[in-house]
Order: sequence, then structure tokens, then C-alpha cells
Amino acid sequence: ASTVALGDKQQEEEKKVQGGATSGASAGGENNNKGIVSYWGVEPAKITKEDGTEWRWNCFKPGETYKADLSIDLKKHHAPVTFLDKVAYWTVKSLRYPTDIFFQRRYGCRAMMLETVAAVPGMVGGLLLHCKSLRRFEHSGGWIKALLEEAENERMHLMTFMEVSQPKWYERALVFTVQGVFFNAYFLTYLVSPKLAHRIVGYLEEEAIHSYTEFLKELDKGTIENVPAPAIAIDYWRMPPDSTLRDVVIVVRADEAHHRDVNHFASDIHYQGHELKKAPAPIGYH
Amino acid sequence: ASTVALGDKQQEEEKKVQGGATSGASAGGENNNKGIVSYWGVEPAKITKEDGTEWRWNCFKPGETYKADLSIDLKKHHAPVTFLDKVAYWTVKSLRYPTDIFFQRRYGCRAMMLETVAAVPGMVGGLLLHCKSLRRFEHSGGWIKALLEEAENERMHLMTFMEVSQPKWYERALVFTVQGVFFNAYFLTYLVSPKLAHRIVGYLEEEAIHSYTEFLKELDKGTIENVPAPAIAIDYWRMPPDSTLRDVVIVVRADEAHHRDVNHFASDIHYQGHELKKAPAPIGYH
Ligand SMILES: [Fe+2]
Ligand SMILES: [Fe+2]
Ligand SMILES: [Fe+2]
Ligand SMILES: [Fe+2]
Repeated sequence: ASTVALGDKQQEEEKKVQGGATSGASAGGENNNKGIVSYWGVEPAKITKEDGTEWRWNCFKPGETYKADLSIDLKKHHAPVTFLDKVAYWTVKSLRYPTDIFFQRRYGCRAMMLETVAAVPGMVGGLLLHCKSLRRFEHSGGWIKALLEEAENERMHLMTFMEVSQPKWYERALVFTVQGVFFNAYFLTYLVSPKLAHRIVGYLEEEAIHSYTEFLKELDKGTIENVPAPAIAIDYWRMPPDSTLRDVVIVVRADEAHHRDVNHFASDIHYQGHELKKAPAPIGYH
Repeated sequence: ASTVALGDKQQEEEKKVQGGATSGASAGGENNNKGIVSYWGVEPAKITKEDGTEWRWNCFKPGETYKADLSIDLKKHHAPVTFLDKVAYWTVKSLRYPTDIFFQRRYGCRAMMLETVAAVPGMVGGLLLHCKSLRRFEHSGGWIKALLEEAENERMHLMTFMEVSQPKWYERALVFTVQGVFFNAYFLTYLVSPKLAHRIVGYLEEEAIHSYTEFLKELDKGTIENVPAPAIAIDYWRMPPDSTLRDVVIVVRADEAHHRDVNHFASDIHYQGHELKKAPAPIGYH
């Protein structure tokens, strides 16, 4: 028995853009899955864009794309008041010096490398809240989803900058090491004090906004070439086809401002003596 | 400066069901967030159902709901052939005896308790693939999303069964311990052999289908009362308002069959010498 059960089971937004989906069982599987044969008949639906062309990304679907909200205030800042705020603030500030020295003015490379780190906190927070929700038989108020969405969004930043900057072998080695250290450090911090963890991310995002602003300056000066935007960015942020790297940096910077808000807000909730689930999570806040 | 930026930034499917969304800045925030004051103006959109009533869940959104595909073959089975297959098969089989003895015929309680465990593998797999994607500057082929979706779906199973069965204090203690052990065991297994890890989950899902079938038998015999379906289940699986626990068990069992397919398929991909990203992930496969 071999099942192909497409159609019904696809989410609403996929149905909307779906082309001729169902095909023969195992034969179709072979076509789709590039030679991978399977008894299970698990086939992804063929998805098309609004204009009828085939959707070419497997790593994200049309339902996850969005138009960036560029009206967001880039200048908002949480003034560190409490001891923990100051710990968070100075931790982030002190991380900036080695980063500045390492990357100098190579902002493309800097963006790519830092996004590999930026995608960690959302995943760690989502994981810990998920496990807590299961252990305590409690709803999460949507925060698991909100933090995982942040992680995914950061991963899309990386996938975008990868297209304009290629990592060298020693940069790959550095990412490997930094991820090992940062993942564990953030994991432990979140376990001990989610209040501190979210505050640190809030400040990291403030720095990210700053360095994307510097990136824009270099693009405007012409020291970094304003190449066409990668195709993946155009589809993900629903940008006009003639967009450039400059446009990409602007939408990414807006994303960082949203992450800043969410994380400072999450920290504020903890500061006010609540668990995150007390406040409905900002899902789909881009 | 206080920003309220709703509207644009909501995903397509939320817009579709959204009522009058924007409200005043900080005042609105206070209403929504039950007394939590924030400088950040991060407000979730007010969402309404198709019938105009307010969407009452924060832990999932209308875009995540679906109609279960009940046409799926419940009898499919991966016959263990290789040594690793047999390890996976007998690991799962040997876990069944203590479980059977502990729960006897209390299937409601059993379902609730086992779902706290079932939601772990998807999250662990998603986490590890996410970190790998970042480290290697590689796309995941959608598998991060697919595995995280599985974890969320299992968490929704738990949230549903919680409504019909309340955990006792020693059951909470047991869940705490089992999660600690299982999380780490699965994490390490996935690191060493994703092939084995996915196969184990495939077999766990086969067992889950079996025990939900037993659950149905008890409901039909009348030894377990066929109470009305919890409201959360009706909204999540888009069920008719007069659905019962029996209907819930049927859709949950269909979910487990889909997880079985996805995990055996993932294991098959590894067996054929590929990484998961070689085959587009079955996102939205319910
Ligand atoms: Fe980013
Ligand atoms: Fe960010
Ligand atoms: Fe389940
Ligand atoms: Fe399952």
C-alpha cells in the first residue's frame, strides 16, 4: 500500500498558490526527491508563485514571506537601569570591540558571520519554553512560536547574505567555535535568568541596527558595491525584482528593530514579575 | 516614542481573518497584555474567526489549523531489516511493556502523558538541523520547519488531552524525569545517527497509532466516557461543534500516521546515503 495524500492536508495559504499537485505515487516521489525512493509517498506539494511560475525554495514557503514594516522606529533604546540591565548592556558593548577589530569595514562579511550567531537565541528560547510547556502542562501564550519565528527570520538573513559574501575556511572554523560557545552560554543564561537573556538579545539587536546603518553608509559612499538583491531576498521580503543590496539591508535592519522590541518586551514582562505566557506573544510581528 | 505597527506586518492568513486590529498605543497594550506595561508597543493583532467571533487562543493561530486527512493508511509498517532498524524496533517494543503496566487501560491519561514525550524529537531534530544549517551556511530543504511543525502538532495533542485528563502530582514528577532522560538520550542519538533517531520515532508513531486504536475500542465499549470534544480541538482541527472525544482521537491518530511517514521517510533518506536537505521536506503534511 502506498499513499499519496495531498490536497486536503495542505495549509490554507499553500492551497491558494498550489499548482497541479498530485501525481503518481512512487514515480512522482522519484521525480521530486531527486532519486530518493520511498515507500512512504511523502511528497511536498508543487507550489507556484502568484505569477504562475514554480516556487523555487524548499527552505521557506509563500506563507512565510512578508513585506517588511519600514516605519519602525530605529532609535528606540532601553536605558539600562537595574544591575542586570547593566550586565546585559556591558556584555554586549564589550563584545563589539573584538568584532569591530576583526571585521573592520567588511560589512557584508560581518553581517553574514553575525547572523549565524543571531539565529541561536530564538531557537534556544523556543526550545526551553517548549519543554517547559510540556513539563508543566501549560500553554505558552504563543511565545514558543514567536521565538522560533525569530530564529527562522535570522536564518533567512544568513541565507540572504550568503549569496553576496562567501565564507572562507577560517571563517567557517570561527563560526563553528563561536556557535559552540554562544549556544551553551545562552542556554545556561536563559535557564538561570530569561530576563537577562532577553535583555542581552535586545541590546544585541540595537547593535545590529547600528552596524546595518554603517553598512548602508558604506553602500552610499560606494566603498561596497550595491549589487542586485539575491533572488531569495526578493521572494522572502516580496521586494520589487530590481531591488539592490541596499534595499535588502534596509529590510533586514527593520527586522532587527522588531527583534529588539520583542526581546526587550519579553525582558520587561519578566521584570514585572510575570511569565511570558501572561502576555499574548507577538506572532507575525515583522 | 511609542510605536504601534500592526496591519502590514501580519502574515497573509492572519489578515484574512483579522477584525478591527489597530488600537491606541500604550493604552491598548495594557488592555491586551493584562496589566503588563511596555515601552515597546509590541501588540498582538486581534484576530477573529470566520464567523466574526474573537479568536481565543494565543498558543496557535488560524493559519495553523487544518482538517485532518483521515484517508491515510494506518497499517503501513517499516519491516526492520538492517541492524539499526532492529535496534530501533526493539528499543520501542521494550519501552511498551512498562508503559502498558503503568497505564493499564487508562488511555486518556496515557495519551496525555505520552504526548509530553512525543513533542521532544521534532524539537530536538529541528534544533540540530537549524544549528547545522547555520554552521555550514547551507539551506535545510525545509526540514527544520517540518520537524518543528511536528513538535508543535504534538504539543497541540497534549494541550487537547490536558482538557480531558488532569495530571496528578506524581505524574507531573514522572513527566519531569522522563523528559530529562528522553531529551538527552534523543539529542545524543540524533547527533550520532539521525538515521536511527528518525527510525525510532517512526516506530514510536506506529505504537501511538496502535494505542489510539485501543483508546477508540474502549470508547466504543463505553468503558471510557465519550465526552464532548474540548473547544481547543474543535478550533485546531476545524471540527464540527458537536464533535466528541472519539472524533478527537481519530484525528490525532491520523496525525500520528503522518508523523510515522515523515520519520520513516527521513530515515530512508539517510539510509540511501543522502542528507535530509536532498529531498524537499513535507511541510504542511498533516
Ligand atoms: Fe539578523
Ligand atoms: Fe535580529
Ligand atoms: Fe501525538
Ligand atoms: Fe506523533
